[in-house]
Amino acid sequence: MGRHTPQLDRISAPADMKSLSDAELRILADELRDEVIHSVANTGGHLGSSLGVVELTVALHAVFDTPRDKLIWDVGHQCYPHKVLTGRRAQMHTLRQEGGISGFTKRSESPFDPFGAAHSSTSISAALGFSVARDMGQATGDAVAVIGDGSISAGMAYEALNNAGAQGRRMFVILNDNEMSIAPPVGAMSHYMTSLAGSAQPEAAREPGPARDHARRARELVTGAVNDQSTLFENLGFEYIGPIDGHDMDQLLSVLRAARVRSNGPVLIHCCTVKGKGFGPAEEAADRYHGVSSFDPKTGTQAKKRPNAPSYTKIFGEALADEATRDPKLVAITAAMPSGTGLDIFASHHPSRMYDVGIAEQHGVTFAAGLAAGGLKPFCAIYSTFLQRGYDQIVHDVALQNLPVRFAIDRAGLVGADGATHAGAFDIGYLTALPNMVVMAASDEAELVHMVATAAAYDDGPIAFRYPRGEGTGVTIPERGRPLEIGKGLIVRQGFDVAILSFGAHLSESQRAADIIEAQGMTVTVADARFAKPLDTQLIAKLARKHRVLITVEQGAQGGFGAMVLHHLANEGWLDGDLAVRTMTLPDRFIDQGAPDAMYADAGLTAQDIAAIALQAAKVHQVQA
Amino acid sequence: MGRHTPQLDRISAPADMKSLSDAELRILADELRDEVIHSVANTGGHLGSSLGVVELTVALHAVFDTPRDKLIWDVGHQCYPHKVLTGRRAQMHTLRQEGGISGFTKRSESPFDPFGAAHSSTSISAALGFSVARDMGQATGDAVAVIGDGSISAGMAYEALNNAGAQGRRMFVILNDNEMSIAPPVGAMSHYMTSLAGSAQPEAAREPGPARDHARRARELVTGAVNDQSTLFENLGFEYIGPIDGHDMDQLLSVLRAARVRSNGPVLIHCCTVKGKGFGPAEEAADRYHGVSSFDPKTGTQAKKRPNAPSYTKIFGEALADEATRDPKLVAITAAMPSGTGLDIFASHHPSRMYDVGIAEQHGVTFAAGLAAGGLKPFCAIYSTFLQRGYDQIVHDVALQNLPVRFAIDRAGLVGADGATHAGAFDIGYLTALPNMVVMAASDEAELVHMVATAAAYDDGPIAFRYPRGEGTGVTIPERGRPLEIGKGLIVRQGFDVAILSFGAHLSESQRAADIIEAQGMTVTVADARFAKPLDTQLIAKLARKHRVLITVEQGAQGGFGAMVLHHLANEGWLDGDLAVRTMTLPDRFIDQGAPDAMYADAGLTAQDIAAIALQAAKVHQVQA
Repeated sequence: MGRHTPQLDRISAPADMKSLSDAELRILADELRDEVIHSVANTGGHLGSSLGVVELTVALHAVFDTPRDKLIWDVGHQCYPHKVLTGRRAQMHTLRQEGGISGFTKRSESPFDPFGAAHSSTSISAALGFSVARDMGQATGDAVAVIGDGSISAGMAYEALNNAGAQGRRMFVILNDNEMSIAPPVGAMSHYMTSLAGSAQPEAAREPGPARDHARRARELVTGAVNDQSTLFENLGFEYIGPIDGHDMDQLLSVLRAARVRSNGPVLIHCCTVKGKGFGPAEEAADRYHGVSSFDPKTGTQAKKRPNAPSYTKIFGEALADEATRDPKLVAITAAMPSGTGLDIFASHHPSRMYDVGIAEQHGVTFAAGLAAGGLKPFCAIYSTFLQRGYDQIVHDVALQNLPVRFAIDRAGLVGADGATHAGAFDIGYLTALPNMVVMAASDEAELVHMVATAAAYDDGPIAFRYPRGEGTGVTIPERGRPLEIGKGLIVRQGFDVAILSFGAHLSESQRAADIIEAQGMTVTVADARFAKPLDTQLIAKLARKHRVLITVEQGAQGGFGAMVLHHLANEGWLDGDLAVRTMTLPDRFIDQGAPDAMYADAGLTAQDIAAIALQAAKVHQVQA
Repeated sequence: MGRHTPQLDRISAPADMKSLSDAELRILADELRDEVIHSVANTGGHLGSSLGVVELTVALHAVFDTPRDKLIWDVGHQCYPHKVLTGRRAQMHTLRQEGGISGFTKRSESPFDPFGAAHSSTSISAALGFSVARDMGQATGDAVAVIGDGSISAGMAYEALNNAGAQGRRMFVILNDNEMSIAPPVGAMSHYMTSLAGSAQPEAAREPGPARDHARRARELVTGAVNDQSTLFENLGFEYIGPIDGHDMDQLLSVLRAARVRSNGPVLIHCCTVKGKGFGPAEEAADRYHGVSSFDPKTGTQAKKRPNAPSYTKIFGEALADEATRDPKLVAITAAMPSGTGLDIFASHHPSRMYDVGIAEQHGVTFAAGLAAGGLKPFCAIYSTFLQRGYDQIVHDVALQNLPVRFAIDRAGLVGADGATHAGAFDIGYLTALPNMVVMAASDEAELVHMVATAAAYDDGPIAFRYPRGEGTGVTIPERGRPLEIGKGLIVRQGFDVAILSFGAHLSESQRAADIIEAQGMTVTVADARFAKPLDTQLIAKLARKHRVLITVEQGAQGGFGAMVLHHLANEGWLDGDLAVRTMTLPDRFIDQGAPDAMYADAGLTAQDIAAIALQAAKVHQVQA
């Protein structure tokens, strides 16, 4: 790359850092930051979080004995410097690409990734597990969880602190407080942490004196003095150290070394950092370059490619804002993802009707149930993969009580560069299993607009609609959504031999499959199911009666739409005769990151795959007939 | 009943309490306690929690304006006095019985139950929802959540406090601190609340002076004086009042009245109570009569009917303890249910290897994943219905990383008196959908012992086994479990016409169905699938090839075992021909409480139902053939 990185060049693994002086570690950190900037400039990725923890990463690997000590990065957005230091520098150009290294930590990728992540707030639980294993004699060292101020606000992290504090085992939690997760953190806890951090924020810390003053508690650890004022973390049984300046290598090294030597219980080190640190354009950007496309490392200018069509997310946000204009009872809930869900668009029109509950899907779903019980019309917008966090609340608070909560489920199906951890594979199954639930999927962005209107109009119980990540298909967006008839699909192409019943955004792929099949001399019916629950039983009867082969297609795992159709066909006797049925679903394995098309190819869900299955079924059929 | 209850007799609804003097309210509370004791003496139920909140219930209804004000009881174990006061006194003899009133609050039962419950820690989220609705102009008053010290320790409650504290709306949370949920609460938060409560525990409060002294903060509210020491709740944005004595009606009334008049933000009132209060046998019992069968109201002696066979729960606990004797790496995790899961038996043998994480299923599952990553063999014992709380953690931390966490899933299927909220209906579907997961179900208690051994021996990834509530079938328990071959079922009865493929504890019902069918002149094969994943494809091929009719049977919802079998049959072409398949699952509605047999009859899952479906399928088949 032509850049001069003498210290970094010496590091093939963290063990090589043991011989470096503190001064050399400081230089190493500077080189590492430069390396990460130049690397992500080529690949794109989660830059801001990674830049915020460069010094922390160096200090942790210098002080602790990884991989025997288990370093667990919460979420994993911030793991790029860690990857560079742990033998993956040469693979950084493949980051988040098909066949390349993951954008998150991943057990199968490196022994330095003892516990993978991508969803937030899991690290303290995992660290406690490793700590118990160590105490029971397993060959593992200390566990260190690094968790952001947004992630530590989630209920799961609190549960872990509560349990770890009571167990009293030696373990380390680094609170990486940058007052910025994907969006600015919300909630009372966030204010509280800000009050703890006080003027020890790194901006202030640049002045020589004050930061040290405010690192009082850090020095207390080193000197053994104890302060009698207790923090929330101390109430939960943790020793609290900090706040310290997470970009001051001397402070980091001395505090971590002291904590490692002296602690025999659970310790929380409150470390203040700046997201995007050390790269001007990132520090100045509103999102701190949370996720970036490739960019110019000199100017920070990102190579945004021009979209062909607006995203499903944007269409959703606009459609919901439009519905809310006509319906004053309509409110929206997000769990710390206002821009990812498109609710930032909604909020720009109806600021007082958008509720960001923080990283708190459990609370968010039941809060929505309370809103519905109170007579409002809540839209709960949560990605498919994160809605898994609120599953019991969907069952117990929404479906059981038949409350009209609307679930807007973005990122359904395979999602691209974020890989398997973010796939929306299971929602069709885990929702259709629930009594009272209506489940829709949008086949294109115009359908999405109609489904928003359908959900707004439907007040008889819970209703969910799913749609994929990324650009729409480019169809004309209706001026205004029109409520669909519940449980009714439609035939979009009429044939006589093979029927393809598609649920969701694979409709266009199903049409392409029909073209391939028809080229072989058969005619194909293609239907858009629209609803996985309730099923359009008349439509299914028509398809079953008039075709030799029926194929269901969905962007989800087994046990979802196809399973619902099969249950219906079997129990109504449609399968007793000679109808050949096949279900096209995601396969029974996790699909690694890549371009969405490549991922669906990997999954065996292309038009060619669908056509091949249909043709094979029709052929077997003919032989048998 | 012959008892003299003059005040209680005047109350047909809480509005009738408005005319009562404080002295009369005290008498009403005494009568209400007596009423609840005598009522539950006949029906059995959750006595201890209800006795602890008698005074609180009277005071809340006297001070607040229910049902316009929304009184939300967390979990709902403690709602019996509330039911008596809100028009359901005459139905109390039907409590928890088929066709009777629920043992929990339930929206469909009464307008005084604005938000039903049964799972813990949902009340604050719901109360916040109602508070927003009030502020947006809906016709609803103030929301009051009553939540125990165990329930408030869960992550979900913390998420709600965090969000409510930040929103700053007027709402009331009553912390009902009895230092006892189902089991004694664990975790650092529990210690912390004990430290807050100090000597204001009701025992101490019986002395005239001290309790009042320790109700300093309560008086501060009344007098307007402010104390500068902040509690964890204040850190989260709540005004903290208390601790107060929850059995002192004067204190309750004055604090609630003052809070109602003066508060304009979120308020937490810390109220100390005694579980089982006012009934000697309950106060003295280790479990405080948490859940009781019918009993003698004079002596408290419970009419425990002699079981015919040991429970699945007990068999599990013993089998796991036995495995652990031979395997020092085996550890067990419960989320606040040591005795419900049988892990109390395990703990009596291996106290240092049982981890009660509190009401914290999210943390519990990921903690187990950390234990597995650290080289141990964790058994995570969580009821089917509560495991829904850890679903994302199963997906993201366990299945994705293919970590060998063992899930022991008690209360699978319908569970009796606890009703729909506790049904274990969805686990087969939500687990079989996951790559890497092995899913078993025990057809009897001997099989359960073998499945414990199978899970202990299996180290290649996650594995789950489900088993029902209640007594086993009475089969001989093997001395020691023997690991089953993964993905292999077995034929337990051989016939030629109809095949019944049963997954789990409905095997005996399937056998009875076979008897009925054979009485009609057909022969029946019955197979125990043992595994829903991986499927025994050879066994299924054998059944499909040699029978005209194949019926799957499971104690779970659609999208589970039957769906997996259908997917396999469809995609392997077994359905192209003239095999008739039917899937017997739980129906697409929630089943209210009753005896388990009656619930399965309601669900259409008796031997007669299975036989009728099989005979009808065979008949249709013959006509078509």
